[in-house]
Amino acid sequence: MHPRVVALQKLFSESLTKEPIQGSPEELYAPMAYILSLGGKRLRPVMVLLGAELFGGETKEALPAAEAVEWFHNFSLLHDDIMDDAPLRRGKATVHEKWNTNIAILSGDAMLVKCYDFLLRLRRDVQPEIFSLFNKTAIEVCEGQQLDMNFEVRDDVTVDEYLHMIENKTSVLLAAALKMGALIAEAPEDQAQHLYEFGLNVGLAFQLQDDYLDVYGDQSKVGKQVGGDIISDKKTYLWLMAEAQANPEQRAELHRFINVKDRNSEKVACVTAVYDALGIPKQVSQKMDAYFSEAMNHLGIIDATEEQKEPLRHLAETLMQREH
Amino acid sequence: MHPRVVALQKLFSESLTKEPIQGSPEELYAPMAYILSLGGKRLRPVMVLLGAELFGGETKEALPAAEAVEWFHNFSLLHDDIMDDAPLRRGKATVHEKWNTNIAILSGDAMLVKCYDFLLRLRRDVQPEIFSLFNKTAIEVCEGQQLDMNFEVRDDVTVDEYLHMIENKTSVLLAAALKMGALIAEAPEDQAQHLYEFGLNVGLAFQLQDDYLDVYGDQSKVGKQVGGDIISDKKTYLWLMAEAQANPEQRAELHRFINVKDRNSEKVACVTAVYDALGIPKQVSQKMDAYFSEAMNHLGIIDATEEQKEPLRHLAETLMQREH
Repeated sequence: MHPRVVALQKLFSESLTKEPIQGSPEELYAPMAYILSLGGKRLRPVMVLLGAELFGGETKEALPAAEAVEWFHNFSLLHDDIMDDAPLRRGKATVHEKWNTNIAILSGDAMLVKCYDFLLRLRRDVQPEIFSLFNKTAIEVCEGQQLDMNFEVRDDVTVDEYLHMIENKTSVLLAAALKMGALIAEAPEDQAQHLYEFGLNVGLAFQLQDDYLDVYGDQSKVGKQVGGDIISDKKTYLWLMAEAQANPEQRAELHRFINVKDRNSEKVACVTAVYDALGIPKQVSQKMDAYFSEAMNHLGIIDATEEQKEPLRHLAETLMQREH
Repeated sequence: MHPRVVALQKLFSESLTKEPIQGSPEELYAPMAYILSLGGKRLRPVMVLLGAELFGGETKEALPAAEAVEWFHNFSLLHDDIMDDAPLRRGKATVHEKWNTNIAILSGDAMLVKCYDFLLRLRRDVQPEIFSLFNKTAIEVCEGQQLDMNFEVRDDVTVDEYLHMIENKTSVLLAAALKMGALIAEAPEDQAQHLYEFGLNVGLAFQLQDDYLDVYGDQSKVGKQVGGDIISDKKTYLWLMAEAQANPEQRAELHRFINVKDRNSEKVACVTAVYDALGIPKQVSQKMDAYFSEAMNHLGIIDATEEQKEPLRHLAETLMQREH
């Protein structure tokens, strides 16, 4: 990580733990403190701060927006974990497992409300713009999550629909985090929008990389089971691209093990062979590269020095170098 | 209902249906439109408008706040229905029954975000105050709901704890609705606060009346089964007052049918007999009257003509005259 990113991670973590998260009844507040304590790289709040610094803004002034973004991200994880019936989050029990579903719903609701409390600490003159962007983004994230759930029970999802879903579910929050920082630093709208597009494209590249590494990653580096998406019949970018290009035999191969639970290594090998035969790895790489260079184009246009842009450029490169 | 209340109900209903509630994916938006279409008396949004009119504000200017309050109320109903596993809402299937729990969680989340979209349509100069009040209230409603869930599994709830719970779960939203209207009309803070206290006390009186009528109401007027709270072992104000004052025999009587599901009329008669012996109906009446006159005191202090206050006074009286 770039030293500025590391410094901002530290700054944000101190801000996050400065005021203890507590209140009555305890069942409402303890889950908030718990999920926020599970950690993570705090990339979204750091991006708010980097966005502000890029345009010469005061880092401290952007902290409330960074808090709002991190609280929103954790709210969405909390509710998503209920919807996915996930038992674990970062290796620890999810809130609905540790407490119960009702407590998870309600403490998530309260976390969402708390986001706006943070935004109310921003300078009054930037509040309307920031609130609007935050709200638009929050709705898009909800739409993305609903699309993701819809896709689980549909067998006619297109590649474009998938890209639209991941854009909403994950990329818009990264993009909005950066733009919020820019707006707090009073960047002109067009400049702030270039930063938004930078974040959006980095997010898309990163999500495709996530799909790619699940199949082609080095297990020791990826930190999860290779082929996990194939085993769970997940309709990833790789799967949808393969389905769209497969001949009848290849399509039969792709579908042969769907819902088959006890022949995992055979299943992963078989689906991967189809991906390889179709040249999917190269296609995904090219798409990732295209998003990445689109991101860099937007960063390039922004009216700031290379030195000012360096932490953001480095962050994007770090995100895309988990493996290759 | 007072003619001004009827007129504002109509005005608000027109506003609510002016812009169709729709979007993609449909599963996210259809539940919002559905729950808002189930109706109700729209008292909370009307209270926003009455609060504005009391201080000479433009009714139309307060409409976005009225929308936010009604959307918030319906968001809370939607999520509460999941938590209570309620099959019906106003005689129709609840959202989680009609669709599923995940859709109900997510469309509720999106409704909560939409509330803030409405508030962003208010005049910029009043936004910070209104957002703060709205947020404070939203958190209190969450706290009240969590307390209500906690009380279901506790057997040592005190009368004071119960009053604190109903204040948060139901009264603060009525109070905040009125105060939001007042703030939009640029009422002085102390005047707006008196209106808040008026709403809070009317809300408390109304909630106690609700508990009272469940046992002592005329079934044809109340519109639900007499003794429903006793049958479901609900710890109402009457129950908690009775428990606090019962001698050992009366306490045994109160507890005799707890969790007994097949002797309902005997159960209701037995518990009601203990209430009667302890003079609970009179005590509840006195408490309701105390809240009601406290409400009227606050309304009395407000610097407006009797004519301007008339719709609010009439509304409070109507709410308290369902039965007696």
